[in-house]
Amino acid sequence: MTDVDPEASRRAYELDRAHVFHSWVAQGPHRPMVVARAEGSYLWDGEGRRLLDFSSQLVNTNIGHQHPRVVAAIQEQAALLCTVAPQHANAARSEAARLVVERAPEGLGKVFFTNGGADANEHAVRMARLHTGRPKVLTTYRSYHGGTQTAINLTGDPRRWANDTASAGVVHVQGPFLYRSPFWATTEEEESARALEHLEQVVALEGPSTIAAVLLETVPGTAGIMLPPPGYLAGVRELCHRHGILLVLDEVMAGFGRTGAWFARDHWGVVPDLMTFAKGVNSGYVPLGGVLIGDHVAATFDERPYPGGLTYSGHPLACAAAVATITAMADEGVVENAARVGAEVLGPGLAELAERHPVVGEVRGLGVFWALELVRDRGTREALAPYGGSSAEMGALVAVCKERGLLPFTNGGRLHVVPPCTVSDAEAKEGLGILDEALAVVDAML
Amino acid sequence: MTDVDPEASRRAYELDRAHVFHSWVAQGPHRPMVVARAEGSYLWDGEGRRLLDFSSQLVNTNIGHQHPRVVAAIQEQAALLCTVAPQHANAARSEAARLVVERAPEGLGKVFFTNGGADANEHAVRMARLHTGRPKVLTTYRSYHGGTQTAINLTGDPRRWANDTASAGVVHVQGPFLYRSPFWATTEEEESARALEHLEQVVALEGPSTIAAVLLETVPGTAGIMLPPPGYLAGVRELCHRHGILLVLDEVMAGFGRTGAWFARDHWGVVPDLMTFAKGVNSGYVPLGGVLIGDHVAATFDERPYPGGLTYSGHPLACAAAVATITAMADEGVVENAARVGAEVLGPGLAELAERHPVVGEVRGLGVFWALELVRDRGTREALAPYGGSSAEMGALVAVCKERGLLPFTNGGRLHVVPPCTVSDAEAKEGLGILDEALAVVDAML
Ligand SMILES: Cc1ncc(COP(=O)(O)O)c(C=O)c1O
Ligand SMILES: Cc1ncc(COP(=O)(O)O)c(C=O)c1O
Repeated sequence: MTDVDPEASRRAYELDRAHVFHSWVAQGPHRPMVVARAEGSYLWDGEGRRLLDFSSQLVNTNIGHQHPRVVAAIQEQAALLCTVAPQHANAARSEAARLVVERAPEGLGKVFFTNGGADANEHAVRMARLHTGRPKVLTTYRSYHGGTQTAINLTGDPRRWANDTASAGVVHVQGPFLYRSPFWATTEEEESARALEHLEQVVALEGPSTIAAVLLETVPGTAGIMLPPPGYLAGVRELCHRHGILLVLDEVMAGFGRTGAWFARDHWGVVPDLMTFAKGVNSGYVPLGGVLIGDHVAATFDERPYPGGLTYSGHPLACAAAVATITAMADEGVVENAARVGAEVLGPGLAELAERHPVVGEVRGLGVFWALELVRDRGTREALAPYGGSSAEMGALVAVCKERGLLPFTNGGRLHVVPPCTVSDAEAKEGLGILDEALAVVDAML
Repeated sequence: MTDVDPEASRRAYELDRAHVFHSWVAQGPHRPMVVARAEGSYLWDGEGRRLLDFSSQLVNTNIGHQHPRVVAAIQEQAALLCTVAPQHANAARSEAARLVVERAPEGLGKVFFTNGGADANEHAVRMARLHTGRPKVLTTYRSYHGGTQTAINLTGDPRRWANDTASAGVVHVQGPFLYRSPFWATTEEEESARALEHLEQVVALEGPSTIAAVLLETVPGTAGIMLPPPGYLAGVRELCHRHGILLVLDEVMAGFGRTGAWFARDHWGVVPDLMTFAKGVNSGYVPLGGVLIGDHVAATFDERPYPGGLTYSGHPLACAAAVATITAMADEGVVENAARVGAEVLGPGLAELAERHPVVGEVRGLGVFWALELVRDRGTREALAPYGGSSAEMGALVAVCKERGLLPFTNGGRLHVVPPCTVSDAEAKEGLGILDEALAVVDAML
């Protein structure tokens, strides 16, 4: 696995700089790392240096890199039938739909497949608007829902700013986030109650009859892995029912094992009207996303055409990868492993790091889905980097991690600990050891 | 290749009806055909019946079904590395970018990869808006640009209607279409001149300083395969230059061999500022699309971050399929084959059908990209089905084709003849023979 060809990597790097335009960054200063190979929880850069992948790339390789059963399934489906148009039927697509529905809450019996998370959310919003006949969608600040125009306007993070044409019919509310409470709350119970009161007020002021959906990440991911406090999701569900508003849960990042459950919603028992997914459904081995559709919403399009689609909806190769991924995750107890590693290794290990490193303001998460708030001062909670920005200290943290063999995931002043759901105890401990060293370097800078 | 398991197909059908939500249709009456296998220009349905694929699915399998070199490349890349995050670099992505840029006009040196055509157009529009600082985009009626919210509002066909929130900053103009001229023109030259005059008027009335881009399919595809008349594209290019408006060409359907050239624009020599592609780039074997970016537009994002992205941008498996597809097409003269079959077999053969079948009002196209206008009356040119609708005659045409072993592509009152670019003379003639029989049935109904 370490037979990386540095000459080929250099060429890959040079062609990348010449011809590849990258997501989200200024192109001039971007210096991408070449990824040459990967396996399980590790990847190898262009010079053959091994890195423990504590990012799961963009939090998508839940089953780890290059799982042999998924690779074999892709190879077999490639030999049989790569692609068919969406209007036809195909065995791989049918079986993938069955396996996804089997893991969803009762009453969400149909799947509309897309290529990724952004288009899943675009279509969920369309379904909600057409089902209710109402225009607006409520979402939260501190959220990410994708890069197409409607999806980026659903998003509540700084990446929206440059795209906000104030025309997408989206209204943002504050979600619960006790560590930086927008509601002046001091307990999780108070945070939950006030977040619901705030939502109720905004719904009343915007006009319930104008609101098609409340769209939420079950656990906001990129924005900070904020677990919903007790009663919050149940309260949102009840509020939506009361006003004829649909509840859309975005499980693109939180779903398929990440939290130690098939869907994050399983922890709180809430049943949405629509639920979007991508990433973990096949660990991103082939682009795939989708919308799980409540039967009452699907019925709206029984006699009336659904006005949406895409060439690769239900792509056989992508669906075959989903079938293999879900089956392997079930057979090998991958979801259970994520829950156990979270409870027994990452949770306690990160809590211990927080005790020893003053820069850690808070640790929160579950499964293999953890965030560390890094702060200049535990009293003021001043973040180690501004909202949507960076800092010398965050730069140093990333550099030290990579030097010592760990690929981290950071966002603003936070460190996310998001290894694959297949991570072993030993790998988790290896990662915690490197984070320990890196946090010590940052402590010393402050 | 005919070892289709009818039991497995029945199960695929039943699970599809239970759990798969399909694009663009009312779900209740939808009766999808199971596609069990495919090879070259043929596919096999759930009972093992062979059909000549004159649809290329959604006009995307330009290299034919299951091309062995593309299948092998997918299998090899799957074994090596399925996925990396977009911020890193990867050999397959770099090489795909190089090969796409090599085929693009001078000055479009960078590629932003997406999952398909819709998000390619979403990102092209974003780039144009941010580059110019202007909000609006002009597109044509009788066009299709994708299913996400901005893309479907760029679209000028009936699928837009249910999604039109009048808020996407899109203004539609009439494009040239002599057979149903919106300009009361009688020659291609007059049609071209008047279409340009019309565009100039709308630009003046909307305000040039409010228009970021004119976005056109080089040859509108789903909307009717209308070849741009002499001087039209050059005129649009000149008008855009004069007003500081970007020209975006959508080559999602027309690109990668369909017209007998690598890009349809090659026939007319026009150089756009941005050019979108998908489908033929890897024949849809793995979902992939992208934007070719003019160097002046790319430079806008050299120091300033590009505010857009997606998890699977530049997906290694999709890019490896593109590298193999483009290389095989070049080695095997696939683009030349499309041009030759169009000039020597399909063009003359369809013209001959038009002579013998009064229902054919017009034949137009080039390469393996042809449309037949089917009409109740050659004098009035009344279409065989209403705009965006269907009719008994169109239903019969499709049914007869399938009965006789051909999978056709129809839209409203038109029949599109869009086999793979690899189609042989014999296959093209086989298809023409079946169309001859089917058109005779329709003639008899009128
Ligand atoms: C919660 C959530 N929703 C949607 C998306 C968008 O998914 P994609 O990048 O596949 O379009 C993401 C991607 O990070 C996500 O985390
Ligand atoms: C010209 C054109 N643009 C864009 C698209 C949208 O591509 P996709 O379905 O991959 O989103 C299509 C699809 O048919 C198309 O024909």
